[in-house]
Amino acid sequence: MNTADYIIKNLEELGINEIFGVPGDYNFNILDSIQNNENIKWIGCTNELNAGYASDGYARIRGYGALVTTYGVGELSAINAIAGSYAENIPVVHIVGLPSSKNIENKALIHHNTQDTDYKAFLKAYENITAATAFITRDNAKLEIDRIFKALVKERKPVYIALPSDIATMEISDRYTDFNWTSDRDALEKVVQKIADKINDSNKPVIIADSLIKRFDAKIEFKEFISKSQIPVTNFIMGTNIVDFDNEQYLGGYAYEYGNLKAKNYIDESDCLISIGCIYSDLNSYGLHLPKKLNEQIAIYGTYTYVDGKLYNNVKMSEVLESLTEIIEPKNIKINKPIWEYEHKPVYNNPVTSEYIYPRIQEFIKENDIVIAETGTIPYAVSQIKFPHNVDIECQMLWGSIGWATPATMGACLAKPNSRVILLTGEGAHQMSAMEIGSILRLGLKPVILLINNNGYTTERMISNDFNAEYHNIAGMNYSKFARAFDGDIWATRVETEDDFDKALKVTQIMNKMCYIEIAADKTDSPEITKQFLNAAKNKIEPAKITQPPKEVKSDFSLGTFSYETVVHQGIKEEE
Amino acid sequence: MNTADYIIKNLEELGINEIFGVPGDYNFNILDSIQNNENIKWIGCTNELNAGYASDGYARIRGYGALVTTYGVGELSAINAIAGSYAENIPVVHIVGLPSSKNIENKALIHHNTQDTDYKAFLKAYENITAATAFITRDNAKLEIDRIFKALVKERKPVYIALPSDIATMEISDRYTDFNWTSDRDALEKVVQKIADKINDSNKPVIIADSLIKRFDAKIEFKEFISKSQIPVTNFIMGTNIVDFDNEQYLGGYAYEYGNLKAKNYIDESDCLISIGCIYSDLNSYGLHLPKKLNEQIAIYGTYTYVDGKLYNNVKMSEVLESLTEIIEPKNIKINKPIWEYEHKPVYNNPVTSEYIYPRIQEFIKENDIVIAETGTIPYAVSQIKFPHNVDIECQMLWGSIGWATPATMGACLAKPNSRVILLTGEGAHQMSAMEIGSILRLGLKPVILLINNNGYTTERMISNDFNAEYHNIAGMNYSKFARAFDGDIWATRVETEDDFDKALKVTQIMNKMCYIEIAADKTDSPEITKQFLNAAKNKIEPAKITQPPKEVKSDFSLGTFSYETVVHQGIKEEE
Repeated sequence: MNTADYIIKNLEELGINEIFGVPGDYNFNILDSIQNNENIKWIGCTNELNAGYASDGYARIRGYGALVTTYGVGELSAINAIAGSYAENIPVVHIVGLPSSKNIENKALIHHNTQDTDYKAFLKAYENITAATAFITRDNAKLEIDRIFKALVKERKPVYIALPSDIATMEISDRYTDFNWTSDRDALEKVVQKIADKINDSNKPVIIADSLIKRFDAKIEFKEFISKSQIPVTNFIMGTNIVDFDNEQYLGGYAYEYGNLKAKNYIDESDCLISIGCIYSDLNSYGLHLPKKLNEQIAIYGTYTYVDGKLYNNVKMSEVLESLTEIIEPKNIKINKPIWEYEHKPVYNNPVTSEYIYPRIQEFIKENDIVIAETGTIPYAVSQIKFPHNVDIECQMLWGSIGWATPATMGACLAKPNSRVILLTGEGAHQMSAMEIGSILRLGLKPVILLINNNGYTTERMISNDFNAEYHNIAGMNYSKFARAFDGDIWATRVETEDDFDKALKVTQIMNKMCYIEIAADKTDSPEITKQFLNAAKNKIEPAKITQPPKEVKSDFSLGTFSYETVVHQGIKEEE
Repeated sequence: MNTADYIIKNLEELGINEIFGVPGDYNFNILDSIQNNENIKWIGCTNELNAGYASDGYARIRGYGALVTTYGVGELSAINAIAGSYAENIPVVHIVGLPSSKNIENKALIHHNTQDTDYKAFLKAYENITAATAFITRDNAKLEIDRIFKALVKERKPVYIALPSDIATMEISDRYTDFNWTSDRDALEKVVQKIADKINDSNKPVIIADSLIKRFDAKIEFKEFISKSQIPVTNFIMGTNIVDFDNEQYLGGYAYEYGNLKAKNYIDESDCLISIGCIYSDLNSYGLHLPKKLNEQIAIYGTYTYVDGKLYNNVKMSEVLESLTEIIEPKNIKINKPIWEYEHKPVYNNPVTSEYIYPRIQEFIKENDIVIAETGTIPYAVSQIKFPHNVDIECQMLWGSIGWATPATMGACLAKPNSRVILLTGEGAHQMSAMEIGSILRLGLKPVILLINNNGYTTERMISNDFNAEYHNIAGMNYSKFARAFDGDIWATRVETEDDFDKALKVTQIMNKMCYIEIAADKTDSPEITKQFLNAAKNKIEPAKITQPPKEVKSDFSLGTFSYETVVHQGIKEEE
């Protein structure tokens, strides 16, 4: 087995059946290994950034993702996607095909380098945005590849492999290596007992759940823990629908003072805050307004847990939750469940607006769907939807790279072929990566794309000093015509009224093909929750105090951010 | 004047009137400065990679370029374009809008960071691909900005400025700083005398010219030098048309053994090789087959010169050439000029192929045109065209990032509004960045786009082991329909025969709008010179010895590369 085959085999064993990327003259030997593996399919993308986004979308649903690019031009084009995967704990393997070892050793001047011939220059660019990087040589191949995969599996963050073209075809040992890790049993026992004691001693505990529960593959253990413990539970935006809506303990999603107040109020009165897999940021957690500082919490992360500011390292989230479930005494707290859904809106022949769109989407979504929500005005409103069981909601609330959602939709379609994938995006974001529509059609995938065309970057209009500044405008285009320019089977339309939007959604249900609906919205249109939150953020005023937006405030979008030092964080080295 | 205003004013003084980029919430204050400057126009692009390519294209024609992106997501998306500008000495200023100093100092957890809160993490990614980076603070603003602009002007490579949102609006001194530099007079005098002596002592000197003559603004001095010295001159691919084709000393372009042999033979017999602004790489210089090692040459670069391996630092290319012209004795060498042009091809109703395309393009191009040639099969054939006066040919022969040419065309159109810009690209490359057609139309620009649709990545087919591998295929689309989906005035067509291509080129001459011609070519179609060179490169066989391509050769695209140590290079520290 050669080195490339060994990497591909490892990916296959992680459950990957599709690998994304763009061919280039230094990666052919890797692509040949993919071609020779009957369980793996090559998914050529229109460019490397899109390939990175697609593998991110794939990994969110399938568990792991991978992409192959070429030296320099290819790998650097993908770096923003990988940084996003890093920020949000999406485990993606980035394999880069390099020139041959001979060229590297001779410091040859060839295309795709900068005439500096430091062949590690681009790897260095990746060092701050991956869990591990490796430069594969004749002597370190098996060892380094195994190290990389162990880091991937443990940290659930991207890893980077630079593979020279001749090393790709070099024979190496394919001796089995177990990439899994297990908890430090001693630390696990201690931390679980400590958490159980703390919960037992509390009167009003509460759980905040977030997306890292999915990333660290602990959904089942999490569900069993909330079911047995009977502790009320809420979630941040990226954790939407991690808790079933009909769970009796569900407080609804946390939205600080902008939506459901039940969750905020309950947290404010709690004496024991249990955060599980939480990502804090100005947007995902609506800033930091928790009454308990993070070092007063129980904070369970993928590979470590904090209790009252003390770090227990090398304890796996799923094992912490599983052990905790075994010993926890049910708290049996009864709550008044909030009404937590959009009301049905009657349909009129009115211009379509957000006020109609999101309630209608709530009715449209069914069990097992996957919803991809692009950054911008959308995720806040999506987080207010009452979802059926087993609907996976994915949005990039921390990294927030617009353009991500369209290729990520392609990745999601491939990752779970039996699920309907619904993309919600704005046209400014969509234009950034829209060429991938061609790849989606070429593969015969059938997502439902809901494209809200609000004539420019509406979110940025809202948070800038000048709503109508020229720089918020983008090129106009006929989206249906655009989508139909690609080969493949598509149903594309443009809707301007509630009535037409309603009908178009119904039509998608009888179409056995990709559906692409442009929703003509005004540039001032935005969901109410988004408006309120962004206005407050822009003006740095606590939302409760908003009367009139003050004039002459310079843009500094930073409401409710908080200091790193107060946050339970992977970087902190203090250990038990 | 505030910090952002000061940066924009400096750009204006360098001759910039357009700044490219994408708005984002951390860069609004910079965009407001652009909006407030009546001599600078904001050019919003569909994404940041395209903005980087566009500013590269602009800088190639105008001298300098600039782009503005936002923290994290924006800046990382552009990094491949900046690396290309770095490789090829294109001076582009990349200004990145960062969160406020308060957030940075507090290590706040906000969107667009990775929860690691090292606010310099992305700047670090830029360190290996820029001449200088600066992280602007309250205390260093003027000093650091001035340092950055000095590096830009001297090195003619990209620079990177990270500008926190509050620092952008902070008042700073706008005291004038001269960014120009002058040669070390002593070193200049010495090196010029040494070169003159060496040329005087030679019997058969020869000049190789390349693109760095343009990058270091030394075209006039170069022309005067070749005119006075009467030394025969050739060029590498990126230096195409730096020497006028009707110059009596012109040997034609150097193409090793693949095209015009006159240049190769003359060089082989030369006893004094003068290289001016040369970029060596497997592709641009057809490997390294010069009989004189580089340390036996006179090698004149932008800021330094080597004579017989001895470095003279801080001597400006233009001043070296100017001083040399003053003291040089004309050599008065007469050469037999090569016939160096495509022959006129009669037009038939045949399927259109490369054999017809390039001779026809030769007739189509007129004085003052700008030709943008995308990486792939195209540049070799373009370098064989006999061009009229003052036609600027731009291709990315070293960095070779496909997708570059379409946005670079937009940049070139804006940089020189009175010139016709002709883009030659393949459809695989075009798909990577084709959304920028929307921006080109929105701006009312009128390039002529010649899109060779050869059904996939033809260059990569040619250099891989499997010409028909699935991974060489891309999504199919109707390009005319695609182009017409954008708002704006365009003439788009598809041609399949020589006759239709001929007519379409004629039609562009009466259309006062953007013209977009898809040329339907077979996937096996490639210019003859490209075929020969790539085949030889793939099989690592000296071209003269090619009989049959051997089987089972693994891809390692590396013919004729050469060791760094033998190359006159910026990194070498040895000084006079």
